[in-house]
Amino acid sequence: MDHFRRKLWRIGMGLSGRNLLGEAVCCRVSSFGPCHISKAGYSTARQNFNAAGGTVNRIFAPYCVYKGKAALSLSPVLPTFSKLESGAGLKVDRHGVMMLRFWPAIGERKYDWEKRQLFALSATEIGSLISLGSKDSCEFFHDPSMLSSNAGQVRKSLSIKPHADGGGYFISLSVTNNILKTNERFTVPVTAAEFAVMKTACSFALPHIMGWDRYTNNLRHGADENPSKVDKQLLDLEWDK
Amino acid sequence: MDHFRRKLWRIGMGLSGRNLLGEAVCCRVSSFGPCHISKAGYSTARQNFNAAGGTVNRIFAPYCVYKGKAALSLSPVLPTFSKLESGAGLKVDRHGVMMLRFWPAIGERKYDWEKRQLFALSATEIGSLISLGSKDSCEFFHDPSMLSSNAGQVRKSLSIKPHADGGGYFISLSVTNNILKTNERFTVPVTAAEFAVMKTACSFALPHIMGWDRYTNNLRHGADENPSKVDKQLLDLEWDK
Amino acid sequence: MDHFRRKLWRIGMGLSGRNLLGEAVCCRVSSFGPCHISKAGYSTARQNFNAAGGTVNRIFAPYCVYKGKAALSLSPVLPTFSKLESGAGLKVDRHGVMMLRFWPAIGERKYDWEKRQLFALSATEIGSLISLGSKDSCEFFHDPSMLSSNAGQVRKSLSIKPHADGGGYFISLSVTNNILKTNERFTVPVTAAEFAVMKTACSFALPHIMGWDRYTNNLRHGADENPSKVDKQLLDLEWDK
Amino acid sequence: MDHFRRKLWRIGMGLSGRNLLGEAVCCRVSSFGPCHISKAGYSTARQNFNAAGGTVNRIFAPYCVYKGKAALSLSPVLPTFSKLESGAGLKVDRHGVMMLRFWPAIGERKYDWEKRQLFALSATEIGSLISLGSKDSCEFFHDPSMLSSNAGQVRKSLSIKPHADGGGYFISLSVTNNILKTNERFTVPVTAAEFAVMKTACSFALPHIMGWDRYTNNLRHGADENPSKVDKQLLDLEWDK
Repeated sequence: MDHFRRKLWRIGMGLSGRNLLGEAVCCRVSSFGPCHISKAGYSTARQNFNAAGGTVNRIFAPYCVYKGKAALSLSPVLPTFSKLESGAGLKVDRHGVMMLRFWPAIGERKYDWEKRQLFALSATEIGSLISLGSKDSCEFFHDPSMLSSNAGQVRKSLSIKPHADGGGYFISLSVTNNILKTNERFTVPVTAAEFAVMKTACSFALPHIMGWDRYTNNLRHGADENPSKVDKQLLDLEWDK
Repeated sequence: MDHFRRKLWRIGMGLSGRNLLGEAVCCRVSSFGPCHISKAGYSTARQNFNAAGGTVNRIFAPYCVYKGKAALSLSPVLPTFSKLESGAGLKVDRHGVMMLRFWPAIGERKYDWEKRQLFALSATEIGSLISLGSKDSCEFFHDPSMLSSNAGQVRKSLSIKPHADGGGYFISLSVTNNILKTNERFTVPVTAAEFAVMKTACSFALPHIMGWDRYTNNLRHGADENPSKVDKQLLDLEWDK
Repeated sequence: MDHFRRKLWRIGMGLSGRNLLGEAVCCRVSSFGPCHISKAGYSTARQNFNAAGGTVNRIFAPYCVYKGKAALSLSPVLPTFSKLESGAGLKVDRHGVMMLRFWPAIGERKYDWEKRQLFALSATEIGSLISLGSKDSCEFFHDPSMLSSNAGQVRKSLSIKPHADGGGYFISLSVTNNILKTNERFTVPVTAAEFAVMKTACSFALPHIMGWDRYTNNLRHGADENPSKVDKQLLDLEWDK
Repeated sequence: MDHFRRKLWRIGMGLSGRNLLGEAVCCRVSSFGPCHISKAGYSTARQNFNAAGGTVNRIFAPYCVYKGKAALSLSPVLPTFSKLESGAGLKVDRHGVMMLRFWPAIGERKYDWEKRQLFALSATEIGSLISLGSKDSCEFFHDPSMLSSNAGQVRKSLSIKPHADGGGYFISLSVTNNILKTNERFTVPVTAAEFAVMKTACSFALPHIMGWDRYTNNLRHGADENPSKVDKQLLDLEWDK
């Protein structure tokens, strides 16, 4: 209900709303929107979080851009780790990504979150995005069914192209589904300022997506910690070669 | 008392003081000033902080620039989060901002903190600021009463304009209040070095303001943590589409 | 077994696989590879980690680039610290590095992890890498036996040279071993996007490698903490001179 | 003893040593040196650290550059905080700085740590350093006795000037002491790579020096935490104006 109301609220390019000071923000729509209150978010199995132990809840803090024909959101997905058989460490199990979601406008200030399409940028694709010059463009191709019997049936491509005046980009997602005989295309124009947020946020998130934020001196403060012993063991291994 | 003394101390452009080495710092005034010792700060309700649990106190660490006619401070305000109904996560409730405060000089080395005016930059407005080239300018418009019956009665605009010589910017806040029939304008010239601090600090703060610092592998160190289980659940959800 | 299968899977330039969305990723190979599941990783002595105390496991989260003739991985190695005799602090004992590993292709989609060679970039060498312009090149020379009786017998050099078209770099490691009469050379072409990931990841890791992530206000939240007392003591020392 | 040996070891421009792989590092000297094992560090009063509570030890992890006539080190000094009288928060008490230390060469590979001179860069001075273009120079003036009866008796100036070929900088500290009738000058040429480390490390450290790393969503994981309550209180205060 509240979910639905929000869906109809604060959408559309040039729509205004209130910021934290209660001031109206013109021409830019900040990210109160359906993107982070998906039904999926509300309906998943209950989890008991051990707050004292530091376990992290699922976080919904996408960066959203609402424009005339579609909306776009950006949020990081962290890697998963698994223990080495020896118990001597953790390795990345599944790599993290930067998740892009697109969903269409279905009227003035109305967007349809149920029709969203996803595109997951890898670390290297994020590298393309953050190094994009103001006149550069790039395009990525994904096949969700690759290596299965449906290979080639669904094709997704994401393109980022500069505005003619150099002041921003068009970000487009095209999804061709040969099974359903559908072909969807979303285009969201982003301003230079919005793209700067994306670049800064992606640069911040990249080491986290790679799992490198686990390499840190900061957490080694356990009472019976002996960091140099751990590290020397690690260093000895480097001597294998 | 001490609050008042500080107000009269170390203010004005070109004023000097001591740094951590006890060395005098010429031509630049570091931020001992009224900005972070506001009466508001002293008078709020007492809170009991659970230090062991890691609860954070309110922090007052603004970056302040004192110039001839006005002073300017910059400090981040973090987003608030609320729990999803399902208990399965946290979503951003109110977005974070970068808070700019301006207050006027009322004499040599004296500024009037009571006359301060605020302007809260959204994530995208921060994107504008951090991507500003040395010849670029930008301007933002806010209406604190938007969507209320007073809409349009108070208008605020913030402009950032380069110095003629390219070596810094003029940052101006204009507040027009049609109800009180007032029109205030503050202009603070900032050097290239001061603007570099602002850009670096805003780039650092942006992911925090967006709530993205909550997406981190680092905190998953609880004794009964099972990060891969949590993450796989998250990943399954991505398969909705 | 699983280790071996992985070794034969998802290798070679232009090889495709699945990302977190299950989408096929063309033309880029993300880093499921032997690099982070080395036998060394599995066979080391067992360690009991005190999760509650925050002790960190060894982390395997390299950034890997698989190309036609060789593969390359990048991962940070943190510094070690030792206590000052007085007990009043910690000093860096051994500096951190950015570890580069190269290992050769031995057939289509097959690489030989046992033939890997290492090169450890110091903080200053990382400074070279992250400040490299798109037309710049750099080269570093290391002698693993320096200061021993074998000085000069093994020589390693790492070079980073731009592609003729400016769109990436060739990263080459050459190892000359006069004792074994061997001379190995690995060259991995990296795209501009892959190099952007390396730069961003190295910039992120540099302060950690230097041990500067230990200088932080964030951890000072102990129940009987008195940060200002600690700091004043530190400041008094600065007055020695 | 060990302290003294280290002082005589691995010093001088172009000196070589071993890195973590045991490889010799030519032409660059990493920072094993007297800088982080000063007598001051060893002789200070004992402190009992409460590791479980997260209290931070003093950290010695300077970035050091050893050249022919002098050595230079760089390390951050964090701000101190004090509690607001109301108990409702913490404010910066003394600002953080980036501490530069210079000490002279007194022979081949020998430097005299006892003759060091300090210069503490403020946040804004760090802003100058990190925004310095490859042809730019800057200079800062400090008076350690300012506001005392000895004002003007000791003058320090730090200058950063580009090499003629644009490939690095000369960093010079000049200390004129009219009381002791001394005039000392240290000049350390730094390469572009070394300066890149300084810029990256200073950019990393700047928010910490400003105390902004205390503004973080990450630490709010206490068992009885209610972040939104804390934040709403904060936001209400912003409504004062």
